[in-house]
Amino acid sequence: MRRALHGQGASRGIALGRVRVRQPQGLVVEETRIAAEEIPGELRRLHRALDAAREELAGLRRRLHGALAHEVGEFLDLHAMILDDPELLQGLDDLIATGRYGADYALKLQRDRLAAVFEAMDDDYFRSRREDLDHVIGRVHAALHKRAGDARTGLAGEIMVCESVAPSELAELQSRGVVAVVAASGSPLSHAAILARSLHMPMVLGAGELLAQANDGDALMLDGGSGELVLEPDADDLRRYHAERERLAREQAQLAKLRHRRTRTRDGVDIRLFANAESREDVAEAHALGADGIGLYRTEFLFLRRRELPDEEEQFLAYRDLVLGMAGRPVTIRTLDLGADKADHTGLSLRGEPNPALGLRGVRLSLAHPELFLTQLRAILRAAAYGPVRLLVPMIGSREEMLQVTRLLERARLDLEARDQQAGRRIELGAMIEVPAAALALPDFVDLLDFVSVGTNDLVQYLLAVDRNHELLSGLYTPRHPAVLRVLSELFAYGRRRSVPVAVCGEMAGDPANVPLLLALGLRDFSLHPSTLLEVRRAVRACDFARLRRRAASLLRAHDRDGIERWLRRA
Amino acid sequence: MRRALHGQGASRGIALGRVRVRQPQGLVVEETRIAAEEIPGELRRLHRALDAAREELAGLRRRLHGALAHEVGEFLDLHAMILDDPELLQGLDDLIATGRYGADYALKLQRDRLAAVFEAMDDDYFRSRREDLDHVIGRVHAALHKRAGDARTGLAGEIMVCESVAPSELAELQSRGVVAVVAASGSPLSHAAILARSLHMPMVLGAGELLAQANDGDALMLDGGSGELVLEPDADDLRRYHAERERLAREQAQLAKLRHRRTRTRDGVDIRLFANAESREDVAEAHALGADGIGLYRTEFLFLRRRELPDEEEQFLAYRDLVLGMAGRPVTIRTLDLGADKADHTGLSLRGEPNPALGLRGVRLSLAHPELFLTQLRAILRAAAYGPVRLLVPMIGSREEMLQVTRLLERARLDLEARDQQAGRRIELGAMIEVPAAALALPDFVDLLDFVSVGTNDLVQYLLAVDRNHELLSGLYTPRHPAVLRVLSELFAYGRRRSVPVAVCGEMAGDPANVPLLLALGLRDFSLHPSTLLEVRRAVRACDFARLRRRAASLLRAHDRDGIERWLRRA
Repeated sequence: MRRALHGQGASRGIALGRVRVRQPQGLVVEETRIAAEEIPGELRRLHRALDAAREELAGLRRRLHGALAHEVGEFLDLHAMILDDPELLQGLDDLIATGRYGADYALKLQRDRLAAVFEAMDDDYFRSRREDLDHVIGRVHAALHKRAGDARTGLAGEIMVCESVAPSELAELQSRGVVAVVAASGSPLSHAAILARSLHMPMVLGAGELLAQANDGDALMLDGGSGELVLEPDADDLRRYHAERERLAREQAQLAKLRHRRTRTRDGVDIRLFANAESREDVAEAHALGADGIGLYRTEFLFLRRRELPDEEEQFLAYRDLVLGMAGRPVTIRTLDLGADKADHTGLSLRGEPNPALGLRGVRLSLAHPELFLTQLRAILRAAAYGPVRLLVPMIGSREEMLQVTRLLERARLDLEARDQQAGRRIELGAMIEVPAAALALPDFVDLLDFVSVGTNDLVQYLLAVDRNHELLSGLYTPRHPAVLRVLSELFAYGRRRSVPVAVCGEMAGDPANVPLLLALGLRDFSLHPSTLLEVRRAVRACDFARLRRRAASLLRAHDRDGIERWLRRA
Repeated sequence: MRRALHGQGASRGIALGRVRVRQPQGLVVEETRIAAEEIPGELRRLHRALDAAREELAGLRRRLHGALAHEVGEFLDLHAMILDDPELLQGLDDLIATGRYGADYALKLQRDRLAAVFEAMDDDYFRSRREDLDHVIGRVHAALHKRAGDARTGLAGEIMVCESVAPSELAELQSRGVVAVVAASGSPLSHAAILARSLHMPMVLGAGELLAQANDGDALMLDGGSGELVLEPDADDLRRYHAERERLAREQAQLAKLRHRRTRTRDGVDIRLFANAESREDVAEAHALGADGIGLYRTEFLFLRRRELPDEEEQFLAYRDLVLGMAGRPVTIRTLDLGADKADHTGLSLRGEPNPALGLRGVRLSLAHPELFLTQLRAILRAAAYGPVRLLVPMIGSREEMLQVTRLLERARLDLEARDQQAGRRIELGAMIEVPAAALALPDFVDLLDFVSVGTNDLVQYLLAVDRNHELLSGLYTPRHPAVLRVLSELFAYGRRRSVPVAVCGEMAGDPANVPLLLALGLRDFSLHPSTLLEVRRAVRACDFARLRRRAASLLRAHDRDGIERWLRRA
């Protein structure tokens, strides 16, 4: 019988599939004791399961690429680290060898013991670590009981209905054919929800009622935008579903036509759309979509999740690949933007900073390790011999820092000359504007720059003093604040006066809803992930630039977010 | 024989005293086993030592007041928490009762076990927790071996020379008569050094050489400003020492004469000096020094380190005390500014935020708990019936937030009317400007305000995106950045145009070296800790306001910190 329920939409898209319920898993294991002669066999059984769990994690890791590798990778790495923890492993062996417990029960005991340590610490931070611990132990436990071929058990066409979902599971679920996820708990701002959106996997949260009512095999239709959930949809629902699918398909087809069109406003102003990229796939897509170049190439992927640093040659080859991949269009390479919040295993970043977002990161870290920075600068200079390269420096805060960068760049050039190696003759130098002081003091160091790229994600975070990943403060984090608009408007105006191109490369630029606002403020260079490039192009083509510019004054007079959104609705 | 050595000055002041060397303490304890009948006695011995250690910590806690309670208190609380950790205590009992180890050795084993857990976590954060653990275990160990009367063993007139010093020790050392501290490691930006400065206890760091050469009882003279260290000073040294002491005494006497003088520039402009206060002692001192009022009264002390929240009556009495203490001069009460970085045991603040400085704090926390906020607002309104009160709201970021505050304030007033209780008829409402967006968007909500107070500590931290407590970034954290000066200058000018008084209440305002700079930018209201009030008054009296204002334009043209400091040297 048809039942309509409701949850909170967390990742857009509609889906229709069979329900697969996953009940909240507690590790309920009976106490088992083994005989002395069974010890070696039980230890082998445990270690095979540990190896299987490690292999699963590594396999997932290899299948990730692009932005996903970035986000999910950190969880997988943390879990792999827990699996290799000597404390955990020694304890397990002891429990089997000395305590004569079966492997399952040893796993449970050791889990309870470590969980108690975390628990006693009375601190949410540790409690969240406990969830990671549970997840890892659950994985090993599953491996202990896995029959051959289990992994291939199809989930194709299924909708996972569960208590909660971990970010590290999502890619695996999708690769096994799961078409959508419904969870009883979680927030649309959780990592899991963010990932679901970048995987284009519909997700509905806050659906405890469905978890209570649904059974394996029920048909379920859901709308990840509105949060609508329909168990056993009827003929009308199915008609709606198919109509909606067709509408989406038509929209995709319409968008696809824009691949080879110009990004020009109705009144004939050309807007440049650069792509943010961090993988070869992104670069290929940027090229295919007719991006005007790469506006932000993140070099961190060369450094993350490895212990030894990439040498100059390795970096050079990666950057040259990129330059050649864009076939003559400009490529903006951002120097290393590591920090304590990234999965940096090289030992470069500090661990345990009380506020990593305000810590040793970006150019600060590079300037603290000049040899490392010089290696990267030389690699970039060499790649610049193959095509137009723009060098972008993250987290610049003052003229002093920019001067240090120009001195090191000069030094890198001299190093190459001394080695008689070819460097790009002309390389454009730019600063990423994300530190508020740099935004306000741009006139103090603009003479050192060829271009500017505004990193609105961090700039907004600092201007508002709101952590952009803080789930409880998501209502406060918004670029639609009068101060943000004024800072942007002044940056764009100043760039025009000084003929220095100013781009925006934060997520703000990738949201088609912001296009009228950014054009009104005077932006002409957008840098965004290829996944929304066509939508932004479409939005630009629907705008009248001169008309929006005339309405900028009224936008800048808005006193609050409401005022800004009213302006947008009128625009 | 005289030996001159050098370290890094960390807390100003000169000192002369006997050396007391404390060698790096490792817990070297031989394995001791006890007989079954000794178990109860050994357990008693352990628990007496634990109680003694707890009592020591509590005693230290009681002796702290004012800003010190704030800073050192957090360490003491953390240590008290470790002492009460059930994991630690159960393990100790087990080792004695089941393992039949002596209390000392049990202590060592348990310490090693917990340290290994921390160590395995491969994270600086946990490693720093290990240092706290060591400190606590060391305290219990000392208590196990303390003879009666030990605590009174005089250290009077001694200079502690050690490997490193913990912030929680300093107040104790001073109360026992230690006149200065020299340590081999540590940074002038460490908590220990900051505390030494607020205790006016001279400190020299980076003095490994002295630790190697000095012996108990050697005479040592040191200069905590320059870092100069002289073992066995000669007659010339002693003459210098006495001359310097006399100079300081004369300076103090000169300053004391300013107690009853006006804070007026040479050209006759009156400047208002308000006091930052958080204890009854601070208020008394502010009154005695002729402060123009209390510019910042922090109400956190009523909430910190306790589990139950203070009720309206308790708060009312504290605020009324304050109002009466200032005898008619205005008192600025800041509403609760709790956050994850404070020792909040009420459960209000979140634990484990990745970036507490960008988290749920200040007015955000109050608005998330409206009943709590209303209780505080009612208590303040009632106190305002006894004298002029200004209500200051921390971490305001937008017009929306300020509107929420005014609505709740109105509601609190209605509550009191309904109860027929007296409220101050007129209470001035102000916003603390520390969020950059609020500084830039002040015109959007100035109509809701009677006054503004600029919290430069946080404002600078957010503008520069530099954690102000980050030891490695101390070179980057400075209010002497062109962007900071421009933001301040605009705030002051805007306040003048709108006739809204604008004060600065960050540490910037308490440093006499900044007086010419702040006057040039147009500041007339300073709010500062009473400890430097007279020095700031003296600096103001040496300035010519009109001349400085004429030179503001050249200050605002400085491109970097060097330029600002050159201006200051010329001023």
